Amino acid sequence: METKLTFTFLIYFFVKINSCFKKIFFVIISFLVFLFYSEAQTPDSSVIRSIYNEALLNGKSYEDLRELCKNIGARLSGSAQAEMAVKWSEQKMLSYGFDKVSLQPIIVPHWERGNTEVGWFQIKDKINKVNLLALGGSIGTNGLISGELIEVNSLEELKKKNSKDIKNKIVFINQKMDDTFIQTFKAYGSCYPIRGNGAVEASRLGAKAVIIRSLSLSKNEHPHTGSLNYNDSIQKIPAAAISTQDAEQLSTAIKNNQVTFSFEMDCRLYPESPSFNVIGELKGIEHPDEIITIGGHLDSWDTGEGAHDDGAGVIHCLEALRIFKSLKLKPKHTIRVVFFMNEENGNAGGKSYAKISSEKKEKHIAALESDRGGFAPRGFVSDGNENELKWMQSIAINFKNYDLHVFDKGGGGVDIGPLKNYFPEIILFSFVPDSQRYFDFHHAPSDVFENVNKRELELGAAAIASFIYLLDKK
Amino acid sequence: METKLTFTFLIYFFVKINSCFKKIFFVIISFLVFLFYSEAQTPDSSVIRSIYNEALLNGKSYEDLRELCKNIGARLSGSAQAEMAVKWSEQKMLSYGFDKVSLQPIIVPHWERGNTEVGWFQIKDKINKVNLLALGGSIGTNGLISGELIEVNSLEELKKKNSKDIKNKIVFINQKMDDTFIQTFKAYGSCYPIRGNGAVEASRLGAKAVIIRSLSLSKNEHPHTGSLNYNDSIQKIPAAAISTQDAEQLSTAIKNNQVTFSFEMDCRLYPESPSFNVIGELKGIEHPDEIITIGGHLDSWDTGEGAHDDGAGVIHCLEALRIFKSLKLKPKHTIRVVFFMNEENGNAGGKSYAKISSEKKEKHIAALESDRGGFAPRGFVSDGNENELKWMQSIAINFKNYDLHVFDKGGGGVDIGPLKNYFPEIILFSFVPDSQRYFDFHHAPSDVFENVNKRELELGAAAIASFIYLLDKK
Repeated sequence: METKLTFTFLIYFFVKINSCFKKIFFVIISFLVFLFYSEAQTPDSSVIRSIYNEALLNGKSYEDLRELCKNIGARLSGSAQAEMAVKWSEQKMLSYGFDKVSLQPIIVPHWERGNTEVGWFQIKDKINKVNLLALGGSIGTNGLISGELIEVNSLEELKKKNSKDIKNKIVFINQKMDDTFIQTFKAYGSCYPIRGNGAVEASRLGAKAVIIRSLSLSKNEHPHTGSLNYNDSIQKIPAAAISTQDAEQLSTAIKNNQVTFSFEMDCRLYPESPSFNVIGELKGIEHPDEIITIGGHLDSWDTGEGAHDDGAGVIHCLEALRIFKSLKLKPKHTIRVVFFMNEENGNAGGKSYAKISSEKKEKHIAALESDRGGFAPRGFVSDGNENELKWMQSIAINFKNYDLHVFDKGGGGVDIGPLKNYFPEIILFSFVPDSQRYFDFHHAPSDVFENVNKRELELGAAAIASFIYLLDKK
Repeated sequence: METKLTFTFLIYFFVKINSCFKKIFFVIISFLVFLFYSEAQTPDSSVIRSIYNEALLNGKSYEDLRELCKNIGARLSGSAQAEMAVKWSEQKMLSYGFDKVSLQPIIVPHWERGNTEVGWFQIKDKINKVNLLALGGSIGTNGLISGELIEVNSLEELKKKNSKDIKNKIVFINQKMDDTFIQTFKAYGSCYPIRGNGAVEASRLGAKAVIIRSLSLSKNEHPHTGSLNYNDSIQKIPAAAISTQDAEQLSTAIKNNQVTFSFEMDCRLYPESPSFNVIGELKGIEHPDEIITIGGHLDSWDTGEGAHDDGAGVIHCLEALRIFKSLKLKPKHTIRVVFFMNEENGNAGGKSYAKISSEKKEKHIAALESDRGGFAPRGFVSDGNENELKWMQSIAINFKNYDLHVFDKGGGGVDIGPLKNYFPEIILFSFVPDSQRYFDFHHAPSDVFENVNKRELELGAAAIASFIYLLDKK
C-alpha cells in the first residue's frame, strides 16, 4: 500500500512539473508503475481466487455428490449400482463438455453380501445380538455356525497362540485403534492387519471363523466392513466386523464367562464381471501428450452411500476439471480426470489404467488422488524428491488465505500407485483434508451424503483445482 | 536417531578402553550425553504430548458436554435452565478438585420467547408457512399482525428508502452471507448489522415489523436467532428471522407478486434476574497474584442445546484446567477458568467480571476465550504487540504435529474484551477452530450435541491446555 502511494505521488509530481524532459520521464515512470502493478497483481492469486469463487458460488460438487449418493448409492464393483454409476459419470462428464470422455474396460471381482447377516453372543442363557458386517470377500457361513469365542488384542498375540487353544473356536480380534495418533490414517494403518490378515492367521491355527472389532475411532453401533485377504494354501474361514460398541461389551463379557458366538452370513463370490474406469480430459495446449491424472475411486463398499469414501474424491476431481472448463483455463498439459473402478477390493481399475497407459506409450508426468474424504482441506503431500518438495513449499504462500498448510512428503494413493511401476519419473500427490472424522464413517452405514458438509466439499474441489493449475504451469 | 546411536557407540568405546583417564573422559561424555538428551527430549514437547494423551485417552470433555446439552439443554440468561447450568458447572469444577470454585453474582436480562411463534406469507389465495424465530430481545406482536412485505437486500438499501415506501409495511431484509469469504466469521460480520440494527432502521421509516434472512451459509429449513438492538428514541417493532430456504422462496415470490406477510409472537421481556459467572482456579506457585483467565460463555440461545455456541467453549476450558490438575502441572501464574453468563444478550458476565476484577485490584496478565465452536483446531490469534506475535510464532513449532498452523493477530472475544478497559496491558487470545461448519448451527435448533465430534472437541481442549502451559511458563 505504501509503495502504491509513493508511485502515485511520483506521478503527480512529474505531471505538476510539466516540462518536455519531465514528460518523457513521466512516460518511463508510468511504464514502471505498470510493470510494478502487473507484478503486484500476481496473476496466480487472482486465478486461484476465481477458482474458489467458482467452487463456492457456482459449484456443482454438492449437487453432483447428492445425485451419486441418493440416486445411485452404494456401488461395489460388479454390482448393478456400480454400472449405473459408470453411466452416470460418463453422462456427467459429457454434460460438462470435456474434450474427450471415454470408458476404459476392465475386469472386476464380484462379491455380494447376500441377505442374511446376523450374529449374537451367548453367556449361559443370555443372548446378545451384535451388529456385524461380513468383511469384503469373506466366504459365507453355509448356515449358522457357533463356537466358543477366544479374544486376542492383536495379530501378534494371535500368532503366538498354540493351535490347541484356537482349534475349532471363533477368534475375536479386539484391537482398538490408537486414539493418540493425531493423523487418524496412522491409527488405521496400524490396525489394518487384523482386517487384512486376521482370517488367514486364525485359520492357520484351526479357527472356524474370525470376528474383528471395527476399524473406527468412534464408539457406536455401526460395524465397518473392508476387504480381507485369503491365502490359497490356507483354509478359507468366514470373517466379519462387529461394531466398536459391541466389541467392548463382548470383551467385558468374555472376561469372566465362557462365551459362545453364533452367526450366519450368505455372502459369496460370483464370477468376475466386466466394468469400466471412466475418463474425461482437457487437452493440453502446449504439451498435449504429457498427462496429469487426477482422480479417486467410483466404487464404494456396499453399505452406506460411499459419500466420503470415495464419492467426495471423484466429485472433487470432476469439479476441478469442470472449473477449468468453466473459467476457460487452458492447461498446458493434458489434464485427465479418472474415476477408478474397484479400489476397494482388488484395485483392478488402478492397475489396468497404469498398464494400458504404458501399452499406449503415453507420457505421464504427475498424478493426484483424492481418497481421504470430503472434509476441510489441509493441504497436499507428494512422493517427489527434494526439489519437488521445495516447489510444493514454494506454492504454500498461495494457499495461506485458504487455510491450507500441509505441503509435505507423503504417499500417493492406491489408485494412482501402479503408475509408478510403469512411469518411474512420475510424481504422485495426495490431497489431504482434515482426518478427524474420517473413520467415523469409513466403510460404515453412516457414510452417507448428509455427513458431508457442502462448504468443506467445495473447498476441497477448489484446493485441488488451484493446485493442479499451479502444477500445470510449473 | 542417528545421533543417539553415535553417542551410544562413544560410550561403549570409552568403557571398552578402560583406563583411568578414559574413565574421567567417560564421565564427561556421559554428562554431555545427559545434557544432549535433556535438550533433545524438549520437556515442552513431552508435556504437550502428555496433555494430548490425557485429552484423547482419559478426556472428560465429550461426556461433560453431553451432560450440559442433554441434561440441561438450551440455557438463555434468566431462564431456569441457566441457573441449573450454573449449579452443574459449580459441582463439576468442585468434582475436579480445583483450588477454588466460586459463583460471582451478576444481574442479567430475562427475555422469553413464549409459546406462540408462527408466520406465513400469502400470495392471492396461497398460504406459505415459514419457519421463524423471534430475534432475541424482540417485543411480541400483541396478536397477529399482517402487512404488505417489502424486500431489501441490505441495511444500506433500507436506509436509502423513502418513508412513504416503508410506512406500515413489513420489511424483509434478505442479505445473503457471502460464500466467498474463506473465514466464515468475516461473512457473518458483514451481515450482522441486519440483525443488530434492522428493527431500528425499519422502524425509523415507519415499518410495522421486520423479518430478516437467517445469518447462515447453509440453505435449509432452520431459522437462526440472535440478539437485536432497540433504540429508546425509536418505536420498538417486532423482529424475526426466517430460514434461508424460506427467504429464497419468499424472495422469488415477491418478484412478481404483492405479498402479505403475517406472524404472531408472544415473546416478552421480564424484570432483570440475578445470575452468576462460575469461576474455578488453580493457584500459581510463583506468581499467585497474576491471573490468566480462560473461558467461554455458559448461557446459550433458547433453541437447540448451545452445543457449539458455547457449550464447546466452556468445556474446552474446563477440560484444559482438569488436564493441568490431572497431570499435576503446577502453573506459575494463577489460571482461572470462567464460565461467563449472558454473552448472548447483554454481556453482563463479561462486563461484571472485568469490573469486579478491577475493584478487587487483581492483576490480569492474559485471557483466552473459546467461542468459535468445537471443531478441529487451527490455532490461536492474539491482540498483542509485535513482540507478543513473535512469541506466538515461536511456539508454532510445538504444534506442527498437532495440525495447528494459525498463530496470527486477531481479536480477543466478547467475554474477555471488557478486561482491556481495566487492564490495558492484558493480552487477549482467541482459540481458532476450523470455521466452515459453524454457521450451519449457530443460534439454530441444529446446535445440538450430536453435531459436535468427539475427537475435534478433545483436540480443542488439548490445544488450549498446551497453549496455556506455554503461555504460563513464558
